[in-house]
Amino acid sequence: MTPDPLNRLVAQLAKLPGIGEKTAQRLAFHILRAPGEYAAELSQAIREVKEKVHLCVRCFSLTDAETCNFCRDARRDERVLCVVETFADLMALERTREFKGRYHVLHGVLSPLEGVGPDQLRIRELLERLNDSRVEELILATNPDVEGEATALYLTRLLKPMGLRVTRIAQGLPMGGDLEFADQATLAKALSARRDL
Amino acid sequence: MTPDPLNRLVAQLAKLPGIGEKTAQRLAFHILRAPGEYAAELSQAIREVKEKVHLCVRCFSLTDAETCNFCRDARRDERVLCVVETFADLMALERTREFKGRYHVLHGVLSPLEGVGPDQLRIRELLERLNDSRVEELILATNPDVEGEATALYLTRLLKPMGLRVTRIAQGLPMGGDLEFADQATLAKALSARRDL
Repeated sequence: MTPDPLNRLVAQLAKLPGIGEKTAQRLAFHILRAPGEYAAELSQAIREVKEKVHLCVRCFSLTDAETCNFCRDARRDERVLCVVETFADLMALERTREFKGRYHVLHGVLSPLEGVGPDQLRIRELLERLNDSRVEELILATNPDVEGEATALYLTRLLKPMGLRVTRIAQGLPMGGDLEFADQATLAKALSARRDL
Repeated sequence: MTPDPLNRLVAQLAKLPGIGEKTAQRLAFHILRAPGEYAAELSQAIREVKEKVHLCVRCFSLTDAETCNFCRDARRDERVLCVVETFADLMALERTREFKGRYHVLHGVLSPLEGVGPDQLRIRELLERLNDSRVEELILATNPDVEGEATALYLTRLLKPMGLRVTRIAQGLPMGGDLEFADQATLAKALSARRDL
């Protein structure tokens, strides 16, 4: 009994991750009540993001140009390359303001169960890129879970023979963490990876 | 450092209620990864809902025609009129499939603190509508909170003298509720509004 355009909007919004039927309805009502410019701007932003944003031809992060800001920025160190699973992970690293090298986005992890092998990731492109660049260190920043670890191991075996320094981001207790509440795997890792002071 | 179209979309999505910066980013990535048709359909649905959906000239619910489905449906009883705060409340009542009368949407409640008086609600239109219709019973279905109660009281005083039967939706323990955990106000109401069996 609700107007069709409203039903259509609710149906489209409910396809978004984490947005159920009820939330979709609430969002649709908000869009309906908001000033007309908001709906116009949101509608255009959605169309444009799909039209203009695509993968960087070099590092496969996101860009609206041919190569991304990270690849174009001459101040970033070409000798250090950080390999991440997703663009969201890249952004998390950027927020630390600690890393001033270049990136390579794999767009996934090795996952035999889901049919994701090396050919489904941007690994071939990574190898090509390493051939004609002056990368000295490769930081493997895949997630510290089963698949991320497996991917890091695979890349290590593949790239170490090329004479590169291959490193892995550290695992241990998170800052502000508590030994009492840490899970066994994390605590075991923190212990075995202890550093000399 | 993220592409501008992506930043713009995240900014627009973050204006939605209950959507923070992080969720907006997650939604934007989803839209970017989804097939092109999804972005196109979502974008169009947002534009259309604002272009086509407006208030019914009679009952002020939502419609894409001049009058809404509820007003046009000849099978619905014209003699019973249910007054609600919002269209979302109307839909909640419709989902019960218990009510077969007509609706009137106030679009708010009396709230002196927020500067909402009778003139800001669709009360004048309600009076006009009652003048030239054959409504016999008016069900006040505003929320059972301070403002909803005040609005119901205001409408009762206004409409009772017109010789209408004015009723209020029942308040008491919710179905499946538990006396032990009910709040005092609800339990007191359930007690004072007890029914003969």
